[in-house]
Order: sequence, then structure tokens, then C-alpha cells
Amino acid sequence: MARPLRIGLIGFGNIGAGVIEVLRANRDLLDARCPRPLQLRRVADIDLTQPRSVEVDRELLTDDSESVVRDPEIDVVVELIGGLEPARTLVETALREGKHVVTANKAMLAHHGADLLAVAAEKRVRLLFEAAVGGGIPIVRTLCEGLAANRITRIEGILNGTCNYILTAMASGKTYEEALAEAHELGYVEADPTADVEGMDAAHKIAILASLAFGQDIRYEDVDREGITRITQQDIRRASGENCAIKHYAVAEMDEQGRVAVSVRPTLLGTDHLCHEVVGVLNAVVIEGFPVGQIMLKGPGAGPKPTASAVLSDLMWLSRIENGQSPPPSLLTIPPGKKPPKKA
Amino acid sequence: MARPLRIGLIGFGNIGAGVIEVLRANRDLLDARCPRPLQLRRVADIDLTQPRSVEVDRELLTDDSESVVRDPEIDVVVELIGGLEPARTLVETALREGKHVVTANKAMLAHHGADLLAVAAEKRVRLLFEAAVGGGIPIVRTLCEGLAANRITRIEGILNGTCNYILTAMASGKTYEEALAEAHELGYVEADPTADVEGMDAAHKIAILASLAFGQDIRYEDVDREGITRITQQDIRRASGENCAIKHYAVAEMDEQGRVAVSVRPTLLGTDHLCHEVVGVLNAVVIEGFPVGQIMLKGPGAGPKPTASAVLSDLMWLSRIENGQSPPPSLLTIPPGKKPPKKA
Repeated sequence: MARPLRIGLIGFGNIGAGVIEVLRANRDLLDARCPRPLQLRRVADIDLTQPRSVEVDRELLTDDSESVVRDPEIDVVVELIGGLEPARTLVETALREGKHVVTANKAMLAHHGADLLAVAAEKRVRLLFEAAVGGGIPIVRTLCEGLAANRITRIEGILNGTCNYILTAMASGKTYEEALAEAHELGYVEADPTADVEGMDAAHKIAILASLAFGQDIRYEDVDREGITRITQQDIRRASGENCAIKHYAVAEMDEQGRVAVSVRPTLLGTDHLCHEVVGVLNAVVIEGFPVGQIMLKGPGAGPKPTASAVLSDLMWLSRIENGQSPPPSLLTIPPGKKPPKKA
Repeated sequence: MARPLRIGLIGFGNIGAGVIEVLRANRDLLDARCPRPLQLRRVADIDLTQPRSVEVDRELLTDDSESVVRDPEIDVVVELIGGLEPARTLVETALREGKHVVTANKAMLAHHGADLLAVAAEKRVRLLFEAAVGGGIPIVRTLCEGLAANRITRIEGILNGTCNYILTAMASGKTYEEALAEAHELGYVEADPTADVEGMDAAHKIAILASLAFGQDIRYEDVDREGITRITQQDIRRASGENCAIKHYAVAEMDEQGRVAVSVRPTLLGTDHLCHEVVGVLNAVVIEGFPVGQIMLKGPGAGPKPTASAVLSDLMWLSRIENGQSPPPSLLTIPPGKKPPKKA
């Protein structure tokens, strides 16, 4: 029996509960496919009083995340706290302690990804983040593995399901306020919807994708950003009259001189556009490169179950590193400070 | 400087020429991303007299594929001959000689994949085949890596670009014969179109995908197959009148009892179906599983450049195995003889 891959999970919210639920539901399959069995050893959250959708053995629970990232009996930390701090400090500590980290934290990566990846490389551990972009769509692995041979020239798509849900509802006649309220009721919006509707969330994601696609250190502040809060029914109707849909659309492109432009903003997409028909909370990503041409991926961009699919795929990858062996070199890198010339 | 990954390419047709062209065009990028540089050492083809789109140093060329798969100075054989023999024997020989193999050969895999993967496992080398299904769409890696944590229940899609091109042309009013002639002119059809239009090609591909998705030994003969040669303009018009398109559609599904049904046949898809809008030579694959839900991938399903993208992604993967180290365990396996109970 191989030594288990001992997991410390920090941040026990909906996503964390989803990961634990799937770890249990797909136990047989995970055991069969993982050379080292995935073993949940610690679960940390600042507030252990609120009810959860899964039960966890009391002995595993702690309200001290710091103790988890320093625990010598943990091989990999799964960071699902979100936001910049304390997540960033905890992740850096975990990496410096020689632990792998799996994270879904797009904000942290869009602000500090290159620096954290450099720490991981220095300590010969891995920082994996399939869940940070596109929810269940395996876009990070697709860019870094399946399409690794390509010179990517453009990556674009619908990266925030909340905005897409609201815009889809508005296209069927609802006002912005009605659509937002509906999204709230269905659980598609955070208590504070700002990060979604003002485009910060999509900007985080396109910064991460652009960094990977172009091998440059592209951060949140490099993204031209505009949200959807000023879109009116009149805008929607005018677009529809021109056979277009308004989508909150993220684009990262590199021109022939290597200059990069990254933006996320309301955009008119014609009926012949690949993403015109991407409705509701779905996400979609379109990648253009040589030699592949154009590839599109579409799927659930958020939610505990799709995110669990992504988090677990990273854990399974780690389980295939043999005991005591350093992980194979990664294509998943962002060189810190390597900035592209800006596109005019 | 790391020891190069020495490549012996067997089968120097359009696809082989595409691989060599991209190896050159993306040299800088490949060198930067591959710990071991990809080095083309031998190129074999039974007929070296016909003209090619790329020039290859005469010293690399040979008409003796057998000598390449036995050459001790070759680390990996890229098999692009296609068909069952001599490809199967050459691939098995290469694996038994301790070489990795990268192949685009769907027919060989659909007939002998499980057996060849067993030889690869025994010899502790890897048989990789991203290019065998979906052309440039990285569907094999998506199934085996990005969605590895999922219990797949269904995988379906449009897997033959020629059939889809013909059916798309017929939907715009052309007869089957006119559409086929047009596909010929554009280079989308082999000299003998039988394997495409009778559905053998799509059957090969869905057998491979079903094997990977369900972890069973599902072969070509397990696929219920019907081609597109009997579809008339009248059928197309009737479908269109019902707001449907006729697509040559491949489906592999597993029911709750673990029984599997695999088929490829002309199928009516309504306008709300994910693959209704997949037109021309595009391919698309839809995967359903738990926890991810539904994911769709769309892109160029054939052609030298998309296929080269897939072949090179496999070679890049191999270049990351450290010298003398055995490759990490693979999820890319088909257990020989492990047959699912058939669905009634």
C-alpha cells in the first residue's frame, strides 16, 4: 500500500464541502486511479459553528489554518479561503514548508501568482490551480498540456457565470435589477455582488489565462475592466435589433510584435460568434494558436461540484508523483516581472 | 544541456510533414518548454519518391521503418503510417525495444489498443495517442487528466469532419454526390472515402473514447455503426422541417448497472442541442459526468496542423520525464479483456 497523499484543507465553505462530498462519493474511482490514496487529514475554518452540507470527523477540524500549513504530517494544502489575505500568506507558508498547494483562489493568483509560483519552483513543490479559472472546464491543463505546442495568439471568453446569467435574463426582457434579484434567489451571486458585476472576478481569470498563454507576468491591474451595471434594457434591445447579444467578454490578445492587450467589458457578439449561444451560468473559452487553429471549451464555470472536479484533478496529479521524487518540470509557470510590451 | 529526446518518425505523409513543419516553426517555443529538446533523428516512409511540403535532410530518410523502431539511438517512435498493418507490428516492436510511442492511429488503437497499452506498461514505456481522436481537440488528456476525478456517464459528439462537412453541405441544398465531390475538391476526403462515410473512422474514435471514459476494453466491433451514404435530400428537408439537423453522431453511454452502449449513426439533433451548430469540418465532444456535469469541446478534428498540435503535446509530455526515470503512472489505460455488460 502506497503512502497516502495527506491533505489539509483550509476554508470549509460551500466549495470545501463539495470537495469533501466528491472525495467520498467517488472514493472507489479515486482509489483506483491514484497511486497514492487521497487522505483528508485536516480541515480548517475560521468559523466552525455554521452548518455544512457534509459532516466531518471532529478530530480533523480546527479553526487554526496556520497550524495546518505548518503541520509536518500534511503533504498538500488545499486553499479554498479565497481573497488576498490571509490566503496569500498561508499559501506562501505552505510552499516554504515544502508542501504542494492546490488552490481555487483567482484573486490571489491574479495579484501574486508569479511570485507564489517562483516560491514553489524554489522549494521544488507544485502550486496547482485548475479550479481558479472556468470552474469545471479544465482550461488550465488544456493550455499548459494539451495545447502546449502552440503559439497562442488569442484567448477569450465568458468567464463569469453571474454576469452571463444576468445578461441572459435581461435579453429575455428583465431589467438589470430584476435579473440580479433572480440570480440572488438562485444562489448565483455572493452576498456582495460587486466582484462579479463590476468585472473584477472575470479580470482575475483573464489575467491568469493571459499569463499562462503568453508566458508573461500579467496581473489584475494590467486588465482593462468594465462591469455590467450600467447596461440598460435599451442597450439590450438595440443590440438585439442588430442581431447581437451583449456579453461580458474577456479578451487577451498578442499581436505580431509580442504586444499584449487584456480586457473584460460588455461586448456585442453577433449570431455567428462562437459565444453568442453561451447562455445562463455557463462559461466558455476560445483559444487561438498555431498550429491548432481555434478550440472552444464550454461548461459550468462555478459551483461546488464543478470546482471539486478541478480541485480533485490537481490532487490526482500530485498523487502520481512517486514517493520522495521531485515533480516533473511544469509548463505551468508565470515568470515574475516578465511583462509584455503593451499594445497601443 | 539535457540529453535530447530522439524521435524516429515512421509514415511521412501529410501529417508527418505537418509535424516536421511545426517542429521547425515553433522551435523557440518548444525549446523553452521542453526540458529535453525534441530532436528529429529518423524519418521513414515506404515511398520516398513523392514530393513533400517540407524538405528533410537526406541522411535522416530511410524506407526501412523496421530499422527505425529497432534503432537504439531512438527514444520515441512517432507512428503516422495509419491502418492496422504494418503499423501494429512496428508499434509493438518499438514498445518491446523500450521506446515510447506516439501515434495518431485510431484504427490500430480501436482494434489493438488494450493489448498495446499492456505491452507499454510491461516495458515501462508510454504509448500516447492524443492525435488519434478529435484532431487538435485535446480530448484524450481532458478525459484522462482534467476530468480524471469524474465518474463519466456519457461521451458523445461529432467525430468525423468529412461526414459533418457533407451533411452541412446537404443542409444547404446539395445532393450527397455533390457534397461528396465538393469535399473531395477541398481535400477533406481520402481517395477512398469509405472509412469516413460508412462510419468506420468515427467508430474507431468513439471506441477509444469509450474505453478511456469507462475504463473498459471497448473495441471497434463493439460499436453499432451506420454511415451517411443512404441519407437523401428528402431526409434532410424532413429533418429541417422539424427544426432538426441530421448529424453523424457518436454516443457512448453507461447506465446505472454499468452496462455500456456505443454507437455511431445519423441522428436528428434539435436546434437546442449543443452540437446542432457544429458545422463544416469541425469536431465536437460532449462529456457528462459526476461531479463536473457537462463539458463541451469543439475544434478542428483533422488536418496536418491540428494533428501536429496533438502529436507534439505528447512528445512534450515525454520530454519532461527525467533521464533514466520511469514515467509517472498513467491514467491512460485500457484493461485488456475487461468488457462491460452490454446494454440491452
